[in-house]
Amino acid sequence: MNTQMPETFRLHNFFRSSTSTRLRAALNLKGISYEYLGYALRKGETRTPEFLSLNPAGLVPVLERKDGPPLVQSLAIIEWLDETQPGPALLPRDPDGRARVRAISFMIGCEIHPLNNLRVLARLAEQFGADEAAQKEWFTHWVRTTFDPLEIMLASDERTGRFCHGDTPGMADCCLYAQIWNNRRFDVDSAAWPTIARIFAALDDLAAFRDAAPPLQPDAVPA
Amino acid sequence: MNTQMPETFRLHNFFRSSTSTRLRAALNLKGISYEYLGYALRKGETRTPEFLSLNPAGLVPVLERKDGPPLVQSLAIIEWLDETQPGPALLPRDPDGRARVRAISFMIGCEIHPLNNLRVLARLAEQFGADEAAQKEWFTHWVRTTFDPLEIMLASDERTGRFCHGDTPGMADCCLYAQIWNNRRFDVDSAAWPTIARIFAALDDLAAFRDAAPPLQPDAVPA
Repeated sequence: MNTQMPETFRLHNFFRSSTSTRLRAALNLKGISYEYLGYALRKGETRTPEFLSLNPAGLVPVLERKDGPPLVQSLAIIEWLDETQPGPALLPRDPDGRARVRAISFMIGCEIHPLNNLRVLARLAEQFGADEAAQKEWFTHWVRTTFDPLEIMLASDERTGRFCHGDTPGMADCCLYAQIWNNRRFDVDSAAWPTIARIFAALDDLAAFRDAAPPLQPDAVPA
Repeated sequence: MNTQMPETFRLHNFFRSSTSTRLRAALNLKGISYEYLGYALRKGETRTPEFLSLNPAGLVPVLERKDGPPLVQSLAIIEWLDETQPGPALLPRDPDGRARVRAISFMIGCEIHPLNNLRVLARLAEQFGADEAAQKEWFTHWVRTTFDPLEIMLASDERTGRFCHGDTPGMADCCLYAQIWNNRRFDVDSAAWPTIARIFAALDDLAAFRDAAPPLQPDAVPA
């Protein structure tokens, strides 16, 4: 129990981290305020003993709370928020809808992001000497590999609405919004995926998402 | 609606695929019988028009059912099974326990498997000329990167029991069991992670897991 916390929740994260962005959007959708702690990943700030005691994996985001162990893994935290916190639902109520929202979330969260995050790009440089151009080629390849079928799935399913699933934003939208921000680091344009681009634009009109965007965070540094 | 199906469920999968193995274990835990269809990934059997109509991403596993669209993404399918099918629960009932089981599942499902599956290793060979030794180095690096902290988390948390979470096997165990089988492809020994090794041995004593193991599947070929 951490009695020093000014808020119920303390978010350990990094402005540019895609998993952090998706969790910030979910917290905002739920209307949950939190204390923001930013970590510079490149400077090893998540490899300190203090941070590793919160998350032995040394990864952001971590959601610390007053009454209970720290929560790790952004998608597990979002599910936990939906199960325990008031506010708009982040997943639909029907099992088929929930399976669809989770499938879209995992397409991004398991098939794109893990291949393209900072430590993977660093490993490519270290093990294979991948320069910026090679890293961009790798990054773009994995975005395309999943966004191509995701576009088909979204465009061909009548359950797609203004957002990924109907007209209420939820977990899948948090993942999609964060991924598009990540894509911008390597200038991956969304024009090839019109449904994805349309949904991103609709999300970017909402304060909950806009306020979660990397450039608006306290630890943001200019690109 | 597919009236040609002899069983309620038809599993499109591949014996050696880790995501297929984890789903087979979950189906077995639930006591669900299913029709088994195996696909040779290296031969492009998941890139046919028929398969892409089931899953535009061209990935296994897909769970086809008589009444409803096909389900994709193994972890989304496991959650759906737990929400809709009778049998033992695959996630605990309390939100904190659910968050922990999901976090362990995602550590394996998002941080290890996506970096080490067949198409990623093929891409390393194609883009960087990675030979078998380099692929093994890459594979082992990502297993260690997550298994080291996972071992700490499992060994230090009193909620760990005979299995990942208490004494009842569930979703996290399905992921762990499948990952250890995957590790064997590159001779990654589990001795460095005694708690993980102990849990795998306990799982391997259960028919639900043993029957899901790659070598026992109809499409298995000798290593």
